Parts: sequence; C-alpha cells; structure tokens
Amino acid sequence: MALGLNVAVLKLMWQFRKDPLSDRWVVYAEGRDERPNEYKMNGARPTRTTCPFCAGHEQDTPPHVALYRPRKASTKANGRDWLIRVVPNKYPAFRPEGDASVLQEGLYAGSDAVGAQEVIIESPRHVASLSQLNDEEVTLLLQAYRDRVLAFRQEGRYRYVLVFKNVGPQAGASLEHSHSQVVATRMVPGEVAREVAAARGLFRQHRACFFCRVIEDELEHGQRLVMRTDRFVVLCPYASRMPFEMWILPHVHAAHFEEQDNGELAELAGLLRHMIAKLETLHGPLAYNYFVHTVPFDTSSPRHYHWHLEIFPRLTTTAGFEWGAGCYINPVLPEQAAAILRS
Amino acid sequence: MALGLNVAVLKLMWQFRKDPLSDRWVVYAEGRDERPNEYKMNGARPTRTTCPFCAGHEQDTPPHVALYRPRKASTKANGRDWLIRVVPNKYPAFRPEGDASVLQEGLYAGSDAVGAQEVIIESPRHVASLSQLNDEEVTLLLQAYRDRVLAFRQEGRYRYVLVFKNVGPQAGASLEHSHSQVVATRMVPGEVAREVAAARGLFRQHRACFFCRVIEDELEHGQRLVMRTDRFVVLCPYASRMPFEMWILPHVHAAHFEEQDNGELAELAGLLRHMIAKLETLHGPLAYNYFVHTVPFDTSSPRHYHWHLEIFPRLTTTAGFEWGAGCYINPVLPEQAAAILRS
Repeated sequence: MALGLNVAVLKLMWQFRKDPLSDRWVVYAEGRDERPNEYKMNGARPTRTTCPFCAGHEQDTPPHVALYRPRKASTKANGRDWLIRVVPNKYPAFRPEGDASVLQEGLYAGSDAVGAQEVIIESPRHVASLSQLNDEEVTLLLQAYRDRVLAFRQEGRYRYVLVFKNVGPQAGASLEHSHSQVVATRMVPGEVAREVAAARGLFRQHRACFFCRVIEDELEHGQRLVMRTDRFVVLCPYASRMPFEMWILPHVHAAHFEEQDNGELAELAGLLRHMIAKLETLHGPLAYNYFVHTVPFDTSSPRHYHWHLEIFPRLTTTAGFEWGAGCYINPVLPEQAAAILRS
Repeated sequence: MALGLNVAVLKLMWQFRKDPLSDRWVVYAEGRDERPNEYKMNGARPTRTTCPFCAGHEQDTPPHVALYRPRKASTKANGRDWLIRVVPNKYPAFRPEGDASVLQEGLYAGSDAVGAQEVIIESPRHVASLSQLNDEEVTLLLQAYRDRVLAFRQEGRYRYVLVFKNVGPQAGASLEHSHSQVVATRMVPGEVAREVAAARGLFRQHRACFFCRVIEDELEHGQRLVMRTDRFVVLCPYASRMPFEMWILPHVHAAHFEEQDNGELAELAGLLRHMIAKLETLHGPLAYNYFVHTVPFDTSSPRHYHWHLEIFPRLTTTAGFEWGAGCYINPVLPEQAAAILRS
C-alpha cells in the first residue's frame, strides 16, 4: 500500500484516496487515458472504424469470463455464436491484487484500488442503446447482471458490486456499442453507504422501510408515479437531481438485487426498455446512465434497504454551482416529468 | 411554503427539496429551460448572433446592481462606459421572496428557494475566458466578487454567498461572453457545510487548521505544489476529483474571502489568470469551472476553516460509476498534474 508520498511510489497506480474534507473517495487509474474513444471531444457522431465489441472482433477484447449463447448454439465453438459476452475491462480503474486496508499516512488516508471491473457486451450486433434490443435480449442482460453479482458474492472477497451503464459521450461512454459495466469493490461505495445509513435512520423514524413507504405513497397519490406493473413501480423521485430522473423499484420489499428470479427480471426488462424508449421518443437519442443500488453483501440492513435501479438522463450539465454548493438545479419538477412520462 | 404535494401547488416553482436518502438539496427553477443557449448540444462553436453581455446591449439584461467604470470615465452617463457590470440573473434559480424555513410534510422536507442570483459581466469586450483579460481587469473582477459578498453580508438576510464561474458548454455555460455568478442563500450549501464540519473535526485532531497543515506540508515536500507567491499557494489536492484540479489558498490563515484587501486580490488575480492560461497552454481552450469556498457569515469556525478557490478543468465526464458510487475515477495523479503544471 502506498499513498504516493514519494516519487518512486508514483509508478504504483490504482490507488484509492480519501478526501479528508468530504469523505469522498477517488480512484487513480493509470492508462485509462489511453483507452480508445470513438467520440471526438464534443463530437456527436462516433469516429469508429472498427468496433471491438462487434461479433468477429472477439480477439480485440480480453477473453470472456462468461458467455451467453443461443439455445440452439452451433456446436462448433468458433467463439462467434453468442448473445452476450462478459469480458474483463481492458482499461480498468481497479485491480484484483493489492492491499485494500485503509492506511493513514501523515495527513491523508488511502489504499490500493482493489477490485474487479468487467464489461458486458450486450449484443453481437452494433446497437447503440438498450431500446434497440428486444425484451428477450434485455431479460438476458439483466440475468447477466444478476449472475455477475452472484459470482462476486460467492467469491467472498468483495463487499459490493456496482452494475451501471453509460450511453453517449456526455454520459461518459467511450464506445458506442451498447455495453454495461460491473465493478466489484472491497469497500462499500460512499453513495451506497450513505443511502444505507440514511435508510436505517428512516426505518426507525417511520417504523417501516422508507422505500416501501414511498411506493405506498405514490400508489395512493400517484403524483410522481410513472408506471406500475405487477411487481414493479417506476417513479420520479421527490428530489430528482436531473430532469426525467426515474427509479424502478420492486413493490414487495427486497434488499438484494441478485436474489431476483427470472420472472421478475423479465418483467423488469420490459419496463426498463419501455422507459428508455419513452425517453428517446421525448428527447431523441439522448445520453443516459443507469445503475443498480442494492444492499452490500455483508449488510445488517436487509429490512431497511430496498434495491432499485436509477435512470439518469443526461439532459443538463453540472456547473460551478453544483460542484461548489453540492446542490443541483433542476428545471423540471418530478411531478411534471412524471406527467409527461405517463402521457 | 409548499412541497408540491398537490397539483395546484405545482405552479409555485423555486422550490428547495431535500433528498431524504442523501441529505442533498435540489432547487427547482421554472423558466430556466427558456434561457438562451448559444451552444447547440455538443456543438463546439457558439451559434451567437448577438451577445447580451457585449457593450451596447445593456438593455438586453436587467439593469445593473453595480457598475465598475474606468477612472477617467466619461461624465456623460450613456451607460456604455463600463469595465464590469453586475446584473440580476434574468433566469434565476432563486428568488428573494418566500419562506426559507424548512417544512417537513409527510415523507419529505423542503422550503422555498429563497436567494439572490447575480451575473458579473467581466468585460465590455466579447472575451471567452479569464485568460483574455489583463491582470488589472482580473483584479477588478475579484474586487467585484468581494464587494458582492460584502453587500450580501451587510444585507443580513443571507448565510452564504457562492461565487463561481462556468466556461464552455461542458462546464454548464450557456453564453460564451466571459462572466461569473454570485448566489446568495439563506442556507449554507451542503458541500460547504460538510467541509466546515470536517474542518472542525480535523482541527481537533491536528490541533491546527487542516488547510494550514496541508500548506505547510506542501511547502516542505512540494509534491503537489504548483506555485507559490508571497501570499498564496497553488496546489493539486491530494484527492483531486479531476485531472489538473487546483486549489489556491492564502498562506496566512483566513476564513473569510470577503476580508481580503486590494493588495491580496491583485496578487490572487495574477495567479488565477496565470493558472488558467497554463491550463489552456496544456490542453487548448478548455471548459472549466471555478468557485470560492469561504466560511458562512454566521460561522463559529473562523479558526477551523480556510477560504480557498477551487479550479475544475472539465477534462473528464462523470459517468454511471461516479453517480452510482459517489466515487471519482481520475486518470492523472495530483503529483503528476502538479509536476506538469510546474513545468
């Protein structure tokens, strides 16, 4: 473990550092600057020549750690007959080796950035958004999310797995071909730790899971409710940071995303695809992120925390006010956004 | 005060809402969507036809609240003979009227978004970055910052004033003509409140101002030190969120930015302009933000907190990982950034 306090040590990248004033963690990752970027700065159209994620270019990524194949897959294992490929990230911010214990050295604290980082290639075809996949493909994708989280949970080395997706250069994507990412870490990410701690406090206050109370309230009053299915609700959260921000939550209390069964994932897949398509109908092809928030593996809060998927359309830009104040300016009330999304 | 819990109430915008799970505040501001935007989405070049901030277009902004004129200004008050104009923001996120007390209603808490928001037009000429102003002009700009903070402090209604600047569409600017913004609020912004609370804890731990300790450490070891002048240091903070992030701090402990004298501001001006120019030499014309963090007016922490100016080059994009984990990925160690900035 090294905190970069002398020059020799600077060669060792993949550091985690904690900002003493904000409790925020930053990962330093060498070589990520060198990763291919199909989007020229500010360019709307990718400058792709060959896509490493398309079928036939399997050799351009590290070998897969998981492969989802058609039921009637060719018995010839030519490596091209796949629906979804999971590969290690070629330019990871985290490394599996190192010492994850946090050391304080002088004024500062840090550790090695120990973790695993994988890319889920969502289709052999060059599709640019989740809405271009069909319901079966999105269902399989969600199964892949679940399988990867379960695999890391069973591995026993990690405390948390964050599943997320970046679409478009304004959302931090460097390649157009539709893909998701999975990051397993030895520490619980700050945002999740804060949510879980808050949920614990809110549970005491409301004598119930706060998320369950929110769902109940929206099903009764419906102002921020976008849609409901048998097992899920979609809503615009009360303090949405971005216009048209949406959360998808299961009706019935569940803390662990990775414990959802195939039926639940199929229903979630249809809903997720529908909501992304709806955003694209309203705004045209847009940059967006989504991520799954689930309870840490070693939680003592399964009653307090409720897993959910957060969709972040990147329709606004964070400016000096957001960075300096830690406060967001949103021109669209969630009630207005929900009404538009329902229409 | 209304929390938007029924439809009639939705007409009342300028709401502050608190996210129960993160303690984050969001401001809802009607009409900001309608503000002019010279930058087409993703467009590198502004599509300006007429700039409301240029000399001769004074009628395109609200009347000024402060005007800085040349020493030998024309006695003819034709309104065009100015160096810096301060005007109310035509599309504010805050309003001076309303009830700033936080009300809890059902599951949620909020208040009216009470505040004042001003724009500082930095030059009558159409300049696009601070580096295109000369040292005297930047000195006058910093004096305008100080004067506006002092004016709001004397007004007695506000607890905090955030001074910030957005340059380039990726940094949230909607107009190219170089300008800064000032937001006075009745509550201390979350990011500042957290820093002040942390500084208080760190003071107890180190028996000294943490910022003073950091400056001392950098002056001794110098790994993250970019530059020093008689009264200021520039450094890349230990847990920089962005490549080439820089903080400028006064050597001698000072909590209140607004108490700096003209000599100090002149020295700061030269340094700030130099650092922006250096970033532009390294990266070409780039999007950036900066903001001043100073202690709240009603502080009991003048010994614990140390005002500083944070410069945020927008060379990376926040993606799903940053939003979902609350953790940043930075490809450049601050020690590397400082070495490059020193060169």
